[in-house]
Amino acid sequence: MQRMAGFVQDDVPAEEIARQAALYGPLAQSVRELVDAVIRTEADDADIETAREEIDAITQRLRKQQMAGPYGIRFNGEGHGRPWGNAVVGLRNAIAPPLEIHRDPAGRAWADFRLGAAYEGPPSLVHGGVAALILDQVLGEAAGAGGKPGMTGTLILRYRRGTPLGELRCEAHVDRVEGVKTFAVGHIADAEGVTVEAEGVFILPRWARELLEDEEDGRPPERFE
Amino acid sequence: MQRMAGFVQDDVPAEEIARQAALYGPLAQSVRELVDAVIRTEADDADIETAREEIDAITQRLRKQQMAGPYGIRFNGEGHGRPWGNAVVGLRNAIAPPLEIHRDPAGRAWADFRLGAAYEGPPSLVHGGVAALILDQVLGEAAGAGGKPGMTGTLILRYRRGTPLGELRCEAHVDRVEGVKTFAVGHIADAEGVTVEAEGVFILPRWARELLEDEEDGRPPERFE
Repeated sequence: MQRMAGFVQDDVPAEEIARQAALYGPLAQSVRELVDAVIRTEADDADIETAREEIDAITQRLRKQQMAGPYGIRFNGEGHGRPWGNAVVGLRNAIAPPLEIHRDPAGRAWADFRLGAAYEGPPSLVHGGVAALILDQVLGEAAGAGGKPGMTGTLILRYRRGTPLGELRCEAHVDRVEGVKTFAVGHIADAEGVTVEAEGVFILPRWARELLEDEEDGRPPERFE
Repeated sequence: MQRMAGFVQDDVPAEEIARQAALYGPLAQSVRELVDAVIRTEADDADIETAREEIDAITQRLRKQQMAGPYGIRFNGEGHGRPWGNAVVGLRNAIAPPLEIHRDPAGRAWADFRLGAAYEGPPSLVHGGVAALILDQVLGEAAGAGGKPGMTGTLILRYRRGTPLGELRCEAHVDRVEGVKTFAVGHIADAEGVTVEAEGVFILPRWARELLEDEEDGRPPERFE
């Protein structure tokens, strides 16, 4: 295992990655359903108590063997990243919807997704900050797809109207590149059109640039978040 | 029950609200621990499979009686809001850390909180979009505390450096009010200082203003998200 500022190159073969995805993906998906049920349940008090005890027992068993810290981003020798703990796209993270983001090398990224009760802000609407969370990720992926992965420097969000919970789409593309800065723009839309617009500046910070230069054998990651 | 654009006045007495909080709060907290464990577990495949089956069974029991849609914002005749499904502060929402936000009528809001593995973006750092999510909520609460609850109109985020996972603080205050627009500013900080700065404009949209004017008996909500 090679470490680069929290990026772990573990050389796990593609086949083993597929096996792990098939194991952990459905587990996280089950937890997403549980999160939704806990918000909306009207079960009897006794059932709630029992549920809590059972959940604690499951957690305890899962924690018998666990990583010391957060998941980080792992990647293998082929450069395939596994940001499985990521709050937006993480396969193992029940907080992530998760978005399955498509990218093209022209610097475009997009995703179709569904947000339920867990992403609510104003009644029946997506939380404004959840829209920001998703746009940050998709704009950042557009910057990475365009060849310049970076961390968010600035993000500007303009809310045109409330975003209803349900089926949504997020799209972004690179507007321009100026030295270490990549400018990306994008939006979230429902079936009736755009609800939130965003502009972001993504920058590969100096510490990361220096690490990438020092690391002769390491491959650069596909993206930073 | 009185309905006002998804705000439900249900006249639940304070004592019953306290009882529900003591029932649902610990349940959601247990799910937060489970979310973390699912990201970090290195348990055997058989244990993972068993966990998934047990979680599905719990979800099924909780769903036997449940609300038709998202939680919304409920409030009683005393005007106390219960945004229990909210993605940042929701007592029943395992996606929410949850933040316990303090407010004062001078238009200030602040919260101390801890973010773990589920909020990761770049390795060991808070996802830039999660910082945006939290700032949107806290700036909005400052606007509400200042007497002008509203929905986010514009939000600008400036990332000064990576925000480490762990103990953090978010603060915001109203900078100025211009008609229906409230301008709030704030930041997230770790022990070493500010990591992300934000400015937001919060607006009570026309449809909401009209509803509040039409609703003679209804009390205005404390905030919109």
